[in-house]
Amino acid sequence: MKIYDTPGFPNPARIRVVLAEKGLDSQIEFVKVDLFAAEHKQSAFLAINPTGTVPVLELDDGTFISESVAITEYLDNLDGNPTLTGKTPKEKAVIHMMQKRADDQLIDAVGIYFHHATPGLGARLEAYKSPEWAHRKEWGDRHHEKFVRGMKYFDGVLKTHPYVAGDDFSMADITVYAALMHGSAAGIAIPDDCSALSAWQAKMSDRPSVKNRSGQVMELPA
Amino acid sequence: MKIYDTPGFPNPARIRVVLAEKGLDSQIEFVKVDLFAAEHKQSAFLAINPTGTVPVLELDDGTFISESVAITEYLDNLDGNPTLTGKTPKEKAVIHMMQKRADDQLIDAVGIYFHHATPGLGARLEAYKSPEWAHRKEWGDRHHEKFVRGMKYFDGVLKTHPYVAGDDFSMADITVYAALMHGSAAGIAIPDDCSALSAWQAKMSDRPSVKNRSGQVMELPA
Repeated sequence: MKIYDTPGFPNPARIRVVLAEKGLDSQIEFVKVDLFAAEHKQSAFLAINPTGTVPVLELDDGTFISESVAITEYLDNLDGNPTLTGKTPKEKAVIHMMQKRADDQLIDAVGIYFHHATPGLGARLEAYKSPEWAHRKEWGDRHHEKFVRGMKYFDGVLKTHPYVAGDDFSMADITVYAALMHGSAAGIAIPDDCSALSAWQAKMSDRPSVKNRSGQVMELPA
Repeated sequence: MKIYDTPGFPNPARIRVVLAEKGLDSQIEFVKVDLFAAEHKQSAFLAINPTGTVPVLELDDGTFISESVAITEYLDNLDGNPTLTGKTPKEKAVIHMMQKRADDQLIDAVGIYFHHATPGLGARLEAYKSPEWAHRKEWGDRHHEKFVRGMKYFDGVLKTHPYVAGDDFSMADITVYAALMHGSAAGIAIPDDCSALSAWQAKMSDRPSVKNRSGQVMELPA
Protein backbone atom coordinates (compact mmCIF):
# COMPACT_ATOMS: atom_id res chain seq x y z
CA MET A 1 0.00 0.00 0.00
CA LYS A 2 1.04 3.62 -0.56
CA ILE A 3 0.11 6.74 1.36
CA TYR A 4 0.40 10.15 -0.26
CA ASP A 5 0.83 12.69 2.53
CA THR A 6 2.89 15.45 4.10
CA PRO A 7 4.62 14.45 7.36
CA GLY A 8 3.70 16.53 10.38
CA PHE A 9 0.39 17.82 9.07
CA PRO A 10 -2.77 17.17 11.08
CA ASN A 11 -4.70 14.70 8.91
CA PRO A 12 -1.57 12.80 7.81
CA ALA A 13 -0.65 12.57 11.53
CA ARG A 14 -4.02 10.93 12.25
CA ILE A 15 -3.29 8.13 9.80
CA ARG A 16 0.30 7.68 10.96
CA VAL A 17 -0.98 7.15 14.50
CA VAL A 18 -3.51 4.64 13.14
CA LEU A 19 -0.72 2.77 11.34
CA ALA A 20 1.35 2.63 14.53
CA GLU A 21 -1.65 1.46 16.59
CA LYS A 22 -2.29 -1.33 14.11
CA GLY A 23 1.36 -2.26 13.53
CA LEU A 24 1.07 -1.57 9.82
CA ASP A 25 3.89 0.97 9.32
CA SER A 26 6.17 -1.47 7.52
CA GLN A 27 3.52 -2.27 4.90
CA ILE A 28 3.29 1.31 3.68
CA GLU A 29 5.34 3.18 1.09
CA PHE A 30 5.02 6.91 1.75
CA VAL A 31 4.90 9.41 -1.13
CA LYS A 32 5.47 12.99 -0.05
CA VAL A 33 3.10 15.66 -1.36
CA ASP A 34 4.45 19.23 -1.38
CA LEU A 35 1.54 21.24 0.03
CA PHE A 36 3.52 24.50 -0.01
CA ALA A 37 3.96 24.13 -3.78
CA ALA A 38 0.21 23.44 -4.08
CA GLU A 39 0.94 19.98 -5.46
CA HIS A 40 -2.40 18.78 -4.02
CA LYS A 41 -4.26 21.26 -6.22
CA GLN A 42 -2.66 20.15 -9.52
CA SER A 43 -4.28 17.77 -12.00
CA ALA A 44 -1.97 14.82 -11.26
CA PHE A 45 -3.02 14.80 -7.62
CA LEU A 46 -6.67 15.67 -8.31
CA ALA A 47 -6.82 12.55 -10.49
CA ILE A 48 -6.24 10.41 -7.38
CA ASN A 49 -8.31 12.62 -5.04
CA PRO A 50 -10.67 15.16 -6.63
CA THR A 51 -11.13 16.78 -3.23
CA GLY A 52 -7.46 17.86 -3.27
CA THR A 53 -6.59 16.83 0.29
CA VAL A 54 -3.99 14.63 1.97
CA PRO A 55 -3.67 11.88 3.03
CA VAL A 56 -4.66 9.44 0.29
CA LEU A 57 -4.26 5.67 0.64
CA GLU A 58 -3.57 3.64 -2.51
CA LEU A 59 -4.52 -0.01 -2.16
CA ASP A 60 -2.52 -2.72 -3.91
CA ASP A 61 -5.35 -3.09 -6.46
CA GLY A 62 -4.96 0.58 -7.43
CA THR A 63 -8.02 1.91 -5.55
CA PHE A 64 -7.51 5.35 -4.00
CA ILE A 65 -9.11 6.09 -0.63
CA SER A 66 -9.21 9.65 0.68
CA GLU A 67 -10.78 11.11 3.86
CA SER A 68 -9.21 10.18 7.19
CA VAL A 69 -12.25 8.34 8.57
CA ALA A 70 -12.48 6.19 5.43
CA ILE A 71 -8.75 5.37 5.53
CA THR A 72 -9.03 4.56 9.24
CA GLU A 73 -11.99 2.23 8.61
CA TYR A 74 -9.90 0.37 6.03
CA LEU A 75 -6.74 0.01 8.10
CA ASP A 76 -8.58 -0.78 11.33
CA ASN A 77 -10.65 -3.58 9.79
CA LEU A 78 -7.83 -5.33 7.90
CA ASP A 79 -7.08 -7.69 10.81
CA GLY A 80 -10.71 -8.32 11.70
CA ASN A 81 -10.14 -6.65 15.09
CA PRO A 82 -11.37 -3.05 14.82
CA THR A 83 -9.91 -1.55 17.99
CA LEU A 84 -10.17 2.06 16.76
CA THR A 85 -13.59 2.17 15.06
CA GLY A 86 -15.56 -0.15 17.32
CA LYS A 87 -16.64 -3.78 17.36
CA THR A 88 -20.26 -3.70 18.53
CA PRO A 89 -23.01 -1.58 16.95
CA LYS A 90 -23.04 0.67 20.02
CA GLU A 91 -19.24 1.11 20.04
CA LYS A 92 -19.28 2.00 16.33
CA ALA A 93 -22.09 4.49 16.89
CA VAL A 94 -20.53 6.28 19.86
CA ILE A 95 -17.10 6.44 18.18
CA HIS A 96 -18.54 7.82 14.92
CA MET A 97 -20.63 10.36 16.86
CA MET A 98 -17.64 11.65 18.82
CA GLN A 99 -15.45 11.51 15.70
CA LYS A 100 -17.95 13.74 13.86
CA ARG A 101 -18.03 16.20 16.76
CA ALA A 102 -14.22 16.28 16.78
CA ASP A 103 -14.23 16.93 13.03
CA ASP A 104 -16.83 19.70 13.15
CA GLN A 105 -15.83 21.45 16.34
CA LEU A 106 -12.07 21.02 16.28
CA ILE A 107 -10.23 19.79 13.22
CA ASP A 108 -12.38 21.59 10.64
CA ALA A 109 -12.65 24.70 12.82
CA VAL A 110 -8.91 25.11 13.32
CA GLY A 111 -8.31 24.35 9.64
CA ILE A 112 -10.68 27.11 8.56
CA TYR A 113 -9.06 29.52 11.02
CA PHE A 114 -5.58 28.59 9.82
CA HIS A 115 -6.32 28.87 6.10
CA HIS A 116 -8.59 31.94 6.28
CA ALA A 117 -7.39 34.14 9.14
CA THR A 118 -3.61 33.45 9.07
CA PRO A 119 -1.10 33.25 6.19
CA GLY A 120 -1.80 29.51 6.17
CA LEU A 121 0.51 27.58 3.88
CA GLY A 122 1.83 30.70 2.19
CA ALA A 123 1.65 32.53 -1.11
CA ARG A 124 1.53 29.61 -3.54
CA LEU A 125 -1.78 28.48 -2.06
CA GLU A 126 -3.48 31.86 -2.36
CA ALA A 127 -4.57 31.19 -5.94
CA TYR A 128 -6.63 28.22 -4.72
CA LYS A 129 -8.39 30.09 -1.91
CA SER A 130 -11.32 31.90 -3.53
CA PRO A 131 -9.79 35.37 -3.71
CA GLU A 132 -13.22 36.93 -4.32
CA TRP A 133 -14.25 36.00 -0.79
CA ALA A 134 -13.67 39.34 0.90
CA HIS A 135 -14.72 38.29 4.40
CA ARG A 136 -12.29 35.45 4.73
CA LYS A 137 -10.45 36.82 7.77
CA GLU A 138 -13.68 37.41 9.67
CA TRP A 139 -14.85 33.92 8.76
CA GLY A 140 -11.57 32.45 9.95
CA ASP A 141 -11.75 34.33 13.23
CA ARG A 142 -15.23 32.96 13.89
CA HIS A 143 -13.73 29.48 13.65
CA HIS A 144 -11.06 30.42 16.19
CA GLU A 145 -13.96 30.98 18.58
CA LYS A 146 -15.63 27.75 17.49
CA PHE A 147 -12.40 25.82 18.10
CA VAL A 148 -12.13 27.26 21.63
CA ARG A 149 -15.78 26.34 22.32
CA GLY A 150 -14.98 22.87 20.99
CA MET A 151 -12.03 22.48 23.36
CA LYS A 152 -14.35 23.38 26.25
CA TYR A 153 -16.90 20.81 25.10
CA PHE A 154 -14.29 18.04 24.96
CA ASP A 155 -12.86 19.14 28.30
CA GLY A 156 -16.32 18.48 29.74
CA VAL A 157 -16.44 15.03 28.11
CA LEU A 158 -12.99 14.16 29.48
CA LYS A 159 -13.94 15.25 32.99
CA THR A 160 -16.13 12.15 33.25
CA HIS A 161 -14.57 9.72 30.74
CA PRO A 162 -10.96 8.58 30.29
CA TYR A 163 -11.20 8.80 26.49
CA VAL A 164 -13.19 10.87 24.01
CA ALA A 165 -15.65 8.06 23.17
CA GLY A 166 -15.83 6.61 26.68
CA ASP A 167 -13.74 3.92 28.35
CA ASP A 168 -11.46 3.02 25.44
CA PHE A 169 -9.04 4.79 23.13
CA SER A 170 -10.50 5.21 19.60
CA MET A 171 -10.13 7.14 16.36
CA ALA A 172 -11.99 10.03 18.02
CA ASP A 173 -9.04 10.50 20.41
CA ILE A 174 -6.65 10.58 17.46
CA THR A 175 -8.73 13.28 15.78
CA VAL A 176 -8.91 15.48 18.88
CA TYR A 177 -5.15 15.07 19.44
CA ALA A 178 -4.34 16.05 15.84
CA ALA A 179 -6.63 19.07 16.09
CA LEU A 180 -4.91 20.28 19.27
CA MET A 181 -1.57 19.85 17.48
CA HIS A 182 -2.83 22.02 14.63
CA GLY A 183 -4.21 24.53 17.12
CA SER A 184 -0.85 24.75 18.85
CA ALA A 185 0.95 25.26 15.51
CA ALA A 186 -1.55 28.01 14.67
CA GLY A 187 -1.01 29.71 18.05
CA ILE A 188 -4.17 28.57 19.88
CA ALA A 189 -3.44 27.01 23.26
CA ILE A 190 -5.73 24.89 25.41
CA PRO A 191 -7.62 27.29 27.74
CA ASP A 192 -6.26 27.33 31.30
CA ASP A 193 -9.54 26.11 32.76
CA CYS A 194 -9.59 22.99 30.55
CA SER A 195 -7.58 20.84 32.95
CA ALA A 196 -9.19 17.54 31.91
CA LEU A 197 -8.34 18.18 28.26
CA SER A 198 -4.75 19.11 29.19
CA ALA A 199 -4.34 15.98 31.32
CA TRP A 200 -5.74 13.83 28.51
CA GLN A 201 -3.37 15.49 26.01
CA ALA A 202 -0.40 14.65 28.26
CA LYS A 203 -1.59 11.03 28.48
CA MET A 204 -1.93 10.89 24.66
CA SER A 205 1.57 12.30 24.18
CA ASP A 206 2.94 9.36 26.18
CA ARG A 207 1.12 6.76 24.11
CA PRO A 208 3.70 4.86 21.99
CA SER A 209 1.81 5.35 18.70
CA VAL A 210 1.78 9.10 19.32
CA LYS A 211 5.20 9.44 20.95
CA ASN A 212 6.94 7.79 18.01
CA ARG A 213 5.36 10.32 15.68
CA SER A 214 6.52 13.28 17.74
CA GLY A 215 9.46 14.03 15.43
CA GLN A 216 6.97 14.91 12.72
CA VAL A 217 6.48 18.51 13.66
CA MET A 218 4.29 20.68 11.46
CA GLU A 219 6.66 23.12 9.80
CA LEU A 220 5.02 26.31 8.66
CA PRO A 221 6.62 28.74 6.21
CA ALA A 222 8.56 31.58 7.83
CA MET B 1 -35.59 2.45 20.65
CA LYS B 2 -36.73 6.04 20.18
CA ILE B 3 -35.88 8.52 17.45
CA TYR B 4 -36.27 12.25 18.04
CA ASP B 5 -36.76 13.87 14.65
CA THR B 6 -38.90 16.01 12.39
CA PRO B 7 -40.58 14.09 9.55
CA GLY B 8 -39.72 15.26 6.06
CA PHE B 9 -36.45 16.96 6.95
CA PRO B 10 -33.27 15.87 5.18
CA ASN B 11 -31.28 14.16 7.96
CA PRO B 12 -34.35 12.57 9.55
CA ALA B 13 -35.25 11.28 6.06
CA ARG B 14 -31.84 9.59 5.81
CA ILE B 15 -32.49 7.58 8.96
CA ARG B 16 -36.07 6.72 7.99
CA VAL B 17 -34.75 5.25 4.73
CA VAL B 18 -32.15 3.30 6.73
CA LEU B 19 -34.91 1.93 9.00
CA ALA B 20 -36.95 0.83 5.98
CA GLU B 21 -33.91 -0.77 4.32
CA LYS B 22 -33.19 -2.73 7.49
CA GLY B 23 -36.81 -3.59 8.31
CA LEU B 24 -36.56 -1.85 11.68
CA ASP B 25 -39.46 0.63 11.45
CA SER B 26 -41.68 -1.27 13.87
CA GLN B 27 -39.01 -1.22 16.60
CA ILE B 28 -38.89 2.57 16.77
CA GLU B 29 -40.99 5.03 18.73
CA PHE B 30 -40.79 8.44 17.05
CA VAL B 31 -40.75 11.65 19.10
CA LYS B 32 -41.44 14.77 17.05
CA VAL B 33 -39.15 17.76 17.55
CA ASP B 34 -40.58 21.15 16.57
CA LEU B 35 -37.73 22.77 14.65
CA PHE B 36 -39.80 25.85 13.79
CA ALA B 37 -40.23 26.55 17.50
CA ALA B 38 -36.47 26.07 17.98
CA GLU B 39 -37.11 23.12 20.28
CA HIS B 40 -33.73 21.66 19.23
CA LYS B 41 -31.95 24.72 20.64
CA GLN B 42 -33.54 24.52 24.11
CA SER B 43 -31.87 23.00 27.16
CA ALA B 44 -34.09 19.89 27.29
CA PHE B 45 -33.03 18.88 23.80
CA LEU B 46 -29.41 20.00 24.19
CA ALA B 47 -29.17 17.62 27.16
CA ILE B 48 -29.67 14.69 24.78
CA ASN B 49 -27.66 16.20 21.90
CA PRO B 50 -25.38 19.15 22.71
CA THR B 51 -24.96 19.77 18.99
CA GLY B 52 -28.63 20.71 18.73
CA THR B 53 -29.49 18.71 15.61
CA VAL B 54 -32.00 16.05 14.63
CA PRO B 55 -32.24 13.09 14.38
CA VAL B 56 -31.19 11.55 17.71
CA LEU B 57 -31.48 7.83 18.42
CA GLU B 58 -32.13 6.74 22.02
CA LEU B 59 -31.07 3.17 22.71
CA ASP B 60 -32.99 1.00 25.14
CA ASP B 61 -30.16 1.44 27.68
CA GLY B 62 -30.67 5.22 27.59
CA THR B 63 -27.62 6.07 25.41
CA PHE B 64 -28.24 8.92 22.96
CA ILE B 65 -26.66 8.72 19.51
CA SER B 66 -26.65 11.77 17.24
CA GLU B 67 -25.12 12.33 13.78
CA SER B 68 -26.65 10.46 10.86
CA VAL B 69 -23.54 8.39 10.04
CA ALA B 70 -23.25 7.21 13.64
CA ILE B 71 -26.96 6.30 13.80
CA THR B 72 -26.65 4.48 10.47
CA GLU B 73 -23.62 2.50 11.71
CA TYR B 74 -25.67 1.39 14.72
CA LEU B 75 -28.81 0.37 12.86
CA ASP B 76 -26.93 -1.25 9.97
CA ASN B 77 -24.78 -3.43 12.23
CA LEU B 78 -27.57 -4.66 14.54
CA ASP B 79 -28.25 -7.76 12.42
CA GLY B 80 -24.58 -8.51 11.73
CA ASN B 81 -25.18 -7.89 8.02
CA PRO B 82 -24.06 -4.31 7.24
CA THR B 83 -25.54 -3.81 3.78
CA LEU B 84 -25.40 0.00 3.95
CA THR B 85 -22.00 0.70 5.54
CA GLY B 86 -19.94 -2.13 4.01
CA LYS B 87 -18.77 -5.59 4.97
CA THR B 88 -15.14 -5.73 3.82
CA PRO B 89 -12.46 -3.16 4.74
CA LYS B 90 -12.49 -1.87 1.16
CA GLU B 91 -16.29 -1.58 1.04
CA LYS B 92 -16.30 0.31 4.34
CA ALA B 93 -13.55 2.63 3.09
CA VAL B 94 -15.16 3.47 -0.26
CA ILE B 95 -18.60 4.00 1.33
CA HIS B 96 -17.22 6.28 4.07
CA MET B 97 -15.18 8.23 1.47
CA MET B 98 -18.20 8.83 -0.75
CA GLN B 99 -20.39 9.51 2.29
CA LYS B 100 -17.98 12.26 3.42
CA ARG B 101 -17.95 13.79 -0.06
CA ALA B 102 -21.77 13.74 -0.08
CA ASP B 103 -21.80 15.43 3.34
CA ASP B 104 -19.27 18.13 2.44
CA GLN B 105 -20.31 18.87 -1.12
CA LEU B 106 -24.06 18.37 -0.92
CA ILE B 107 -25.87 17.99 2.37
CA ASP B 108 -23.79 20.51 4.33
CA ALA B 109 -23.60 22.89 1.36
CA VAL B 110 -27.34 23.03 0.79
CA GLY B 111 -27.93 23.31 4.53
CA ILE B 112 -25.65 26.34 4.79
CA TYR B 113 -27.33 27.91 1.75
CA PHE B 114 -30.79 27.26 3.18
CA HIS B 115 -30.07 28.60 6.66
CA HIS B 116 -27.90 31.57 5.61
CA ALA B 117 -29.15 32.83 2.26
CA THR B 118 -32.89 32.08 2.54
CA PRO B 119 -35.42 32.63 5.36
CA GLY B 120 -34.61 29.06 6.43
CA LEU B 121 -36.87 27.80 9.19
CA GLY B 122 -38.26 31.23 9.93
CA ALA B 123 -38.16 33.91 12.58
CA ARG B 124 -37.97 31.79 15.73
CA LEU B 125 -34.61 30.38 14.62
CA GLU B 126 -33.02 33.77 13.95
CA ALA B 127 -31.94 34.17 17.57
CA TYR B 128 -29.77 31.04 17.22
CA LYS B 129 -28.07 32.08 13.99
CA SER B 130 -25.20 34.37 15.03
CA PRO B 131 -26.81 37.72 14.21
CA GLU B 132 -23.43 39.46 14.32
CA TRP B 133 -22.36 37.60 11.21
CA ALA B 134 -23.04 40.32 8.66
CA HIS B 135 -21.95 38.34 5.60
CA ARG B 136 -24.30 35.47 6.10
CA LYS B 137 -26.16 35.87 2.81
CA GLU B 138 -22.94 35.99 0.81
CA TRP B 139 -21.66 32.94 2.67
CA GLY B 140 -24.90 31.10 1.96
CA ASP B 141 -24.76 31.99 -1.73
CA ARG B 142 -21.25 30.57 -2.00
CA HIS B 143 -22.66 27.27 -0.78
CA HIS B 144 -25.34 27.39 -3.45
CA GLU B 145 -22.44 27.34 -5.93
CA LYS B 146 -20.69 24.58 -3.98
CA PHE B 147 -23.86 22.46 -4.02
CA VAL B 148 -24.16 22.86 -7.80
CA ARG B 149 -20.49 21.88 -8.24
CA GLY B 150 -21.17 18.90 -5.97
CA MET B 151 -24.11 17.78 -8.11
CA LYS B 152 -21.82 17.90 -11.16
CA TYR B 153 -19.19 15.83 -9.35
CA PHE B 154 -21.73 13.14 -8.41
CA ASP B 155 -23.17 13.22 -11.94
CA GLY B 156 -19.68 12.27 -13.13
CA VAL B 157 -19.48 9.43 -10.62
CA LEU B 158 -22.90 8.12 -11.67
CA LYS B 159 -21.97 8.20 -15.35
CA THR B 160 -19.69 5.22 -14.74
CA HIS B 161 -21.17 3.53 -11.64
CA PRO B 162 -24.76 2.46 -10.86
CA TYR B 163 -24.54 3.75 -7.29
CA VAL B 164 -22.62 6.51 -5.49
CA ALA B 165 -20.07 4.12 -3.92
CA GLY B 166 -19.85 1.72 -6.88
CA ASP B 167 -21.84 -1.38 -7.72
CA ASP B 168 -24.10 -1.48 -4.66
CA PHE B 169 -26.58 0.79 -2.91
CA SER B 170 -25.16 2.23 0.34
CA MET B 171 -25.58 4.99 2.92
CA ALA B 172 -23.81 7.35 0.51
CA ASP B 173 -26.76 7.03 -1.91
CA ILE B 174 -29.17 7.87 0.90
CA THR B 175 -27.17 11.00 1.75
CA VAL B 176 -27.05 12.23 -1.85
CA TYR B 177 -30.79 11.56 -2.25
CA ALA B 178 -31.65 13.51 0.93
CA ALA B 179 -29.44 16.41 -0.18
CA LEU B 180 -31.18 16.62 -3.56
CA MET B 181 -34.51 16.60 -1.70
CA HIS B 182 -33.34 19.53 0.42
CA GLY B 183 -32.00 21.27 -2.70
CA SER B 184 -35.37 20.90 -4.40
CA ALA B 185 -37.20 22.27 -1.34
CA ALA B 186 -34.78 25.23 -1.31
CA GLY B 187 -35.34 25.90 -5.03
CA ILE B 188 -32.15 24.39 -6.47
CA ALA B 189 -32.83 21.92 -9.27
CA ILE B 190 -30.47 19.32 -10.73
CA PRO B 191 -28.64 21.04 -13.65
CA ASP B 192 -29.97 20.05 -17.10
CA ASP B 193 -26.66 18.55 -18.15
CA CYS B 194 -26.53 16.17 -15.16
CA SER B 195 -28.46 13.38 -16.85
CA ALA B 196 -26.77 10.56 -14.93
CA LEU B 197 -27.66 12.18 -11.60
CA SER B 198 -31.27 12.70 -12.73
CA ALA B 199 -31.58 9.08 -13.90
CA TRP B 200 -30.11 7.85 -10.61
CA GLN B 201 -32.56 10.08 -8.67
CA ALA B 202 -35.49 8.56 -10.59
CA LYS B 203 -34.19 5.06 -9.78
CA MET B 204 -33.88 6.00 -6.09
CA SER B 205 -37.41 7.38 -6.00
CA ASP B 206 -38.68 3.95 -7.09
CA ARG B 207 -36.80 2.10 -4.37
CA PRO B 208 -39.32 0.79 -1.79
CA SER B 209 -37.46 2.25 1.21
CA VAL B 210 -37.55 5.67 -0.43
CA LYS B 211 -40.96 5.41 -2.09
CA ASN B 212 -42.67 4.61 1.20
CA ARG B 213 -41.16 7.76 2.71
CA SER B 214 -42.40 9.97 -0.12
CA GLY B 215 -45.35 11.27 1.89
CA GLN B 216 -42.92 12.95 4.26
CA VAL B 217 -42.52 16.15 2.33
CA MET B 218 -40.41 18.90 3.85
CA GLU B 219 -42.85 21.65 4.78
CA LEU B 220 -41.32 25.09 4.97
CA PRO B 221 -43.01 28.05 6.66
CA ALA B 222 -45.05 30.22 4.32
